Amino acid sequence: MDSGRFGTDVYAGRLRAARAAAAEAGLAGLVITPGYDLRYLVGSRAQTFERLTALVLPSDGEPTVVVPRMELAALKDSAVVELGLRVRDWVDGDDPYALVADVFGGGPVATAVTDAMPALHLLPLAKVLGTVPVLATDVLRRLRMIKDDAEVDALRKAGAAIDRVHARVPEFLVPGRTEADVAADIAKAIVAEGHSEVAFIIVGSGPNGADPHHECSDRVLEEGDVVVVDIGGPYEPGYNSDSTRTYSIGQPADDVAARYAVLQRAQEAAVAAVRPGVTAEQIDAAARDVLAAEGLAEAFVHRTGHGIGLSVHEEPYIVAGNDLPLEEGMAFSVEPGIYFPGSWGARIEDIVIVTSDGAQSVNDQPRDLVVVPV
Amino acid sequence: MDSGRFGTDVYAGRLRAARAAAAEAGLAGLVITPGYDLRYLVGSRAQTFERLTALVLPSDGEPTVVVPRMELAALKDSAVVELGLRVRDWVDGDDPYALVADVFGGGPVATAVTDAMPALHLLPLAKVLGTVPVLATDVLRRLRMIKDDAEVDALRKAGAAIDRVHARVPEFLVPGRTEADVAADIAKAIVAEGHSEVAFIIVGSGPNGADPHHECSDRVLEEGDVVVVDIGGPYEPGYNSDSTRTYSIGQPADDVAARYAVLQRAQEAAVAAVRPGVTAEQIDAAARDVLAAEGLAEAFVHRTGHGIGLSVHEEPYIVAGNDLPLEEGMAFSVEPGIYFPGSWGARIEDIVIVTSDGAQSVNDQPRDLVVVPV
Repeated sequence: MDSGRFGTDVYAGRLRAARAAAAEAGLAGLVITPGYDLRYLVGSRAQTFERLTALVLPSDGEPTVVVPRMELAALKDSAVVELGLRVRDWVDGDDPYALVADVFGGGPVATAVTDAMPALHLLPLAKVLGTVPVLATDVLRRLRMIKDDAEVDALRKAGAAIDRVHARVPEFLVPGRTEADVAADIAKAIVAEGHSEVAFIIVGSGPNGADPHHECSDRVLEEGDVVVVDIGGPYEPGYNSDSTRTYSIGQPADDVAARYAVLQRAQEAAVAAVRPGVTAEQIDAAARDVLAAEGLAEAFVHRTGHGIGLSVHEEPYIVAGNDLPLEEGMAFSVEPGIYFPGSWGARIEDIVIVTSDGAQSVNDQPRDLVVVPV
Repeated sequence: MDSGRFGTDVYAGRLRAARAAAAEAGLAGLVITPGYDLRYLVGSRAQTFERLTALVLPSDGEPTVVVPRMELAALKDSAVVELGLRVRDWVDGDDPYALVADVFGGGPVATAVTDAMPALHLLPLAKVLGTVPVLATDVLRRLRMIKDDAEVDALRKAGAAIDRVHARVPEFLVPGRTEADVAADIAKAIVAEGHSEVAFIIVGSGPNGADPHHECSDRVLEEGDVVVVDIGGPYEPGYNSDSTRTYSIGQPADDVAARYAVLQRAQEAAVAAVRPGVTAEQIDAAARDVLAAEGLAEAFVHRTGHGIGLSVHEEPYIVAGNDLPLEEGMAFSVEPGIYFPGSWGARIEDIVIVTSDGAQSVNDQPRDLVVVPV
């Protein structure tokens, strides 16, 4: 239960920028329920569900936090108090949606809501506001996508920490042990290397490596296995690591080595394509084209990457159809993979930051297929 | 990572009932994204967020699961395959909302969505469907609220398990230890007594007990502390326990004992009021009236209870303004509390099942203020 956050001035700046972006979008304001947007804007890790907690940010008016009275004490874990935001508390039986509407005054008002807002709150809120809100992502995406220096620093520290974990993975990959045994070792290492907690651990050995979202199982490791290890977690004040390396227990078969080499070229090509002005889908295509040229297009069944920050998956998504131009300060994964159902899979993943003229990876572990001696 | 679920026939029955309820409500059907409704309907514990996974249940047509291709493998952990539901998979770049709309055919269609559906999916879905959905809770609430025999059995087992944990709590409450120390012992006991995991642990000692949502802290226990212990977790196949008892380290002060006695009468009065036909708000009033009569109305700052099942908090909510008549098979907490900021708090909580002529508690631990000898 960590509670690290940036200084109050950081959140004050973010609130100003969010309100300006909302005004520029022609909106009366934003309504942000618990989730990463709320954490980004005021450092709150609140996780309330059925009782409405919301940061109401009018483009023109006083930012207000609507909160159940019984959750008031938790506000001290955020920057809400230091920021001097107005607080409107409510008790069971009150109508919290009316409190939100009050902040905007009467009449139908055009608002945007955080993408995490559940239907449970969104639908009654739409009714009270008189219009269906739009997604705040369209307003906040640029703010959240462009990482400032402190955020980049946090991502670098997280990347270095997960690199240290990957450096230790070969010692965990011993034939006769299960994927779950290995995952348990990795979990301890993730925390030991400085993360505040474990966010996810994938240990996909042999045929399990062909399922991109396999977590771990009781499958026993054998010599000859190819093992996908995709791991990460938050590093204070909450920015995530996420890195994948693929390991071979003993020397890989020739066709494994050959296909892996293509994957490695695909990952390098995608990273090399990163620079301001290039679109997200062009990065995806850069990886996909290398694989397609070698007949591996069908083996690459997911997008090339996802943005990362407070959330492990956020904008920008590096995917076909996303014509968003990259900008300096964006942070995302570049993680092509190849999957052969029933047989094996491989993936290589780094987190990169867009610089003024290219990309800088926060991960430095070698990207080769790591051969674990047996 | 448990995967217990009921037999396929249970889910088949639930799907039939859900579709019938949707038809009766005049809806074209339901759209259920990951969360407790999805788990209730098909036993799926999927937790996808930004990629749409949805069970589409047309009132008249073929139930269809829309799922990212990379999540297909996870379907085997649900009853989807055994039920023979149609599966429409999609890959990054496809429009999954169009797949949902396809199930309903063309034109604006009136649908209901699960209350957990995030705005990220709800807003684009509303656009494709041509109408703003309503909450499926209004359709599914009766199904989910009325527990069948197997569900009641699961809740009873969970209740007995958490009772065994409370029976051990006094040995953990030793002056000089911190709330966090106690919580760590309780966490082990929750799992040791048969829960599949810990859902929540509140150890609120002294002034911390006056915050109903305090979790635990480094505060050191002292003789004379009143300690609120509110704990629970899921018991296979996933039904939750949730029980609160209040402890006094050494003999309580006279005014503590006197006020606690009022609280105990309030909790008894609320449980005694439970029977089919009585409304949820009448149960809330039954507890509140006892406290008000002794000048403690202001000290009771939250609702009297919440439904429980696969989710720790679900319908019916036992709260002022909820005129829902109770029915046999409903399960909910009865948990009045009294809170004196800066000083101490107390709460008594049982889970009760509505029977044909009253209520049966799944919790049997004594409800007195438990005096821990020092």
